[in-house]
Amino acid sequence: MGASAVNCTIAVDTMGGDKGPTEFIRGLFYAIEELKLDCNFTLVGNQRLLERLLKVRKLDVYSDRINIIHSTQVIGMNEKPIQALKSKKDSSMVKAIALLKDQQANAMISCGHTGALMAGGTLRLRQIPGVDRPALGIIVPSKKNPFVLTDVGANPESTAENLVHNAILGSNYAKAALKIANPRVALLTIGTEEGKGNTLTNTTHPLLQKVDGIINYVGPIEGFQLFDGDVDVVVCDGFVGNIVLKSSEALFGFIGSTMREELVRNVKRKIGAVLSKSAFKDMKTRLGPDQHAGAPLLGLRGNILKSHGSSNYIAIANALRIAKEVVTHDMIDSIGSEINQANVLITNSETETAP
Amino acid sequence: MGASAVNCTIAVDTMGGDKGPTEFIRGLFYAIEELKLDCNFTLVGNQRLLERLLKVRKLDVYSDRINIIHSTQVIGMNEKPIQALKSKKDSSMVKAIALLKDQQANAMISCGHTGALMAGGTLRLRQIPGVDRPALGIIVPSKKNPFVLTDVGANPESTAENLVHNAILGSNYAKAALKIANPRVALLTIGTEEGKGNTLTNTTHPLLQKVDGIINYVGPIEGFQLFDGDVDVVVCDGFVGNIVLKSSEALFGFIGSTMREELVRNVKRKIGAVLSKSAFKDMKTRLGPDQHAGAPLLGLRGNILKSHGSSNYIAIANALRIAKEVVTHDMIDSIGSEINQANVLITNSETETAP
Repeated sequence: MGASAVNCTIAVDTMGGDKGPTEFIRGLFYAIEELKLDCNFTLVGNQRLLERLLKVRKLDVYSDRINIIHSTQVIGMNEKPIQALKSKKDSSMVKAIALLKDQQANAMISCGHTGALMAGGTLRLRQIPGVDRPALGIIVPSKKNPFVLTDVGANPESTAENLVHNAILGSNYAKAALKIANPRVALLTIGTEEGKGNTLTNTTHPLLQKVDGIINYVGPIEGFQLFDGDVDVVVCDGFVGNIVLKSSEALFGFIGSTMREELVRNVKRKIGAVLSKSAFKDMKTRLGPDQHAGAPLLGLRGNILKSHGSSNYIAIANALRIAKEVVTHDMIDSIGSEINQANVLITNSETETAP
Repeated sequence: MGASAVNCTIAVDTMGGDKGPTEFIRGLFYAIEELKLDCNFTLVGNQRLLERLLKVRKLDVYSDRINIIHSTQVIGMNEKPIQALKSKKDSSMVKAIALLKDQQANAMISCGHTGALMAGGTLRLRQIPGVDRPALGIIVPSKKNPFVLTDVGANPESTAENLVHNAILGSNYAKAALKIANPRVALLTIGTEEGKGNTLTNTTHPLLQKVDGIINYVGPIEGFQLFDGDVDVVVCDGFVGNIVLKSSEALFGFIGSTMREELVRNVKRKIGAVLSKSAFKDMKTRLGPDQHAGAPLLGLRGNILKSHGSSNYIAIANALRIAKEVVTHDMIDSIGSEINQANVLITNSETETAP
C-alpha cells in the first residue's frame, strides 16, 4: 500500500456482472473523484485491460492506492456455484474472496453470480461464531428514511433462531450503513387479527422480545407498512425477502413503463412530460436501486458485498462507499458479541418453556 | 324476485367497509347504470337508511331487482372473527352469508372484516369436497394482460397439496373472471440456480407437473417476472401472497406520493404536471386496485367475494361484476370436478414414491 493509504482496502471482482470492467472503472472513478472515497482498492481481473481502462479514466495517478491482481477466468451467471468455484480457481471472484480470507483486503465487492459468491464466501470465510446461516441485507427507500430489509435470499428455509440472528445482523448493518444509533427492528408478517402470521413468525416474535435489550425490537409489521419508514430494519426469511425485493423492483419498472406509455398518448401530455422530465429523473434517483447498491452477506467473518448484476457506475460507487462504511464500523466484531448474548437468551428461553 | 329477474342474485353486506352504505349504493348505481349489470341484488343492512339511499340515487325504480333485508348489527374491523360471528347473529355479514347458504343468493360480497368473512364463509358453507383449505384469489395488472394471484392470505401455512389446489382454484377463477380458455399457471419461487426455492416450492413443483393435464402448468417464476404478464395464474402460499400484494399496493402509493412531491418542486414541473395530469389519472385507473376489486374466497361451496375495506364505488361495482361472472361460469362445479381428478393423481404419485 502506498503513501496515502488509509486503513481500508477493498477488493473488487471487476469481471463479474453484466456490464464488465469498463463500468467498474467508471464506478471507481466516481467513487474517488465524486464521493471522495478515501481507501485502497485491489482490482481483480484482466491486468492489461484494467491498466488500459485506468489510464483512459486518468486513474493511473492513484497508483499508490490502486493495485491490480491478474486473473484469467470468469464465473458466468448460469454456472453451478460449487462446481464453478472448484473449477475456476483463477477466476476474479475466487481470487477476490481469497484476498479477504488472507487479510489482504477488508472488504470485497462483486456484481457476479450471487449463488457462487454466497457459497464461496461461506466456504472460505466461515460464519461468525454463533451464526448458523448468513443473510443478505439490502437498503430500501421509504417515505421517511431508508431501511434495511434482511434476508433477501441467502437462506430461504429459515428457523426462528435464524430470524433472530437476521435481526441482529440487520441492526448492525443499519448502524454501519445508515448511521442509526439504535435501529428500530420489525418482523414482517401478515394480518392483525386472530391467528395472524404463520408458525415461523409466531415462534420468532417471542424470541425477538427476549433479545429486545440487544436490539430495539418494535414488533411485527404488515406488507402495507413496508414503505412507511417507521422502522429501520425489517426482518424476514430469505424466500419472502427475495420475492418482496424482486417483485418490488419489477413493479417499479412496470409503473415506469406504464407512465411512459401514458405520457406519449397525445401532444399535451408529451409537452407536460418534457417540462416535468427532471421530476421523473429525481424520482428515479430517489427510489431506484443505484443509491443503495451493495448488499452485504451478513454473518460471515469478512465483508462481502453483492451488487446487482446490472449495476451501473453509480451503483458500483455506492457499493464501494457502503463497503468502506461497514469496515469503518467494525461491524463483524459488534455482530459477534451481540450474537453471543442473544444465543444465551434464546437458549435460556427454550429451556424455560421446555416440558 | 321480480319480472326482470335473471338467474343471478347477489347478496351485498352493505354495512361492512370503511365507507359505509352510501358508497355501496353509489357502486350499485354504477353497476346497473354504467356496467349494465343484469342481475338481482339483495342488500343487507339498515332498511330505512338503504331505502333512503336508493331513493336519492333513483334506484327505487328497480324495486323488482333490488330487495332489502334488514339487519341491526355490524361486525367491526377490529373484532375477533369467531366471537363476532357468534355474538352478532343479526349483523349484515352473517345475514348475507346465510342468504348464500340458504340458496337465496348465488354470490355475496362484503368490504368488511376479512377474517370474519373467511371464518363465517368456511363455517357456514364448508369447502368443496376434496379442498382442504380455501384461498383468496385476486386479479393483478401486468405489462400484458391481468393475472390471478392466489393465495393472498386465506391460508398462511400451506402444504404442497394446498398449493396444487390453489393452482386449480386460480385457474378456474382466471377462466371465469378473465375469460381465458386455458390459463397458464406458474409457481412463485426464488432463484434460478442450484438449490433454488424452498422445501414447499420444491415439493409442489413435481406435483404441479403431475396435474398438468388438468391445469396448464408452465413452471416456476421469480419475483422479477411477476408483472411481465407471461402467465395467467401465479400460485403461492397465503403468507407470501399477502405480503406481496400488500407491499405492492404500498409501493404503488409510495411511488405516487414521491412523484407528487417531485412534481411541485418548481414552476416548470408544476406546469408539466398540469398538462400531463390525465396521464397520471389513466395510469392510476390502469394499475390501481379499483378495476379488479372483489377477491373471491375460492374453494368454498358458495361464491363469497371480499372487496377492500376502503373500496370506492367503482371498486364495488367491479366486485359486483366479477361476482356475476363467477356465477355465470359455474365455477364451483368446475372446481369440484378438477379437484377430484387432481387428488387422484397426487395420491397416486405419493404412493409411487413411497418407500
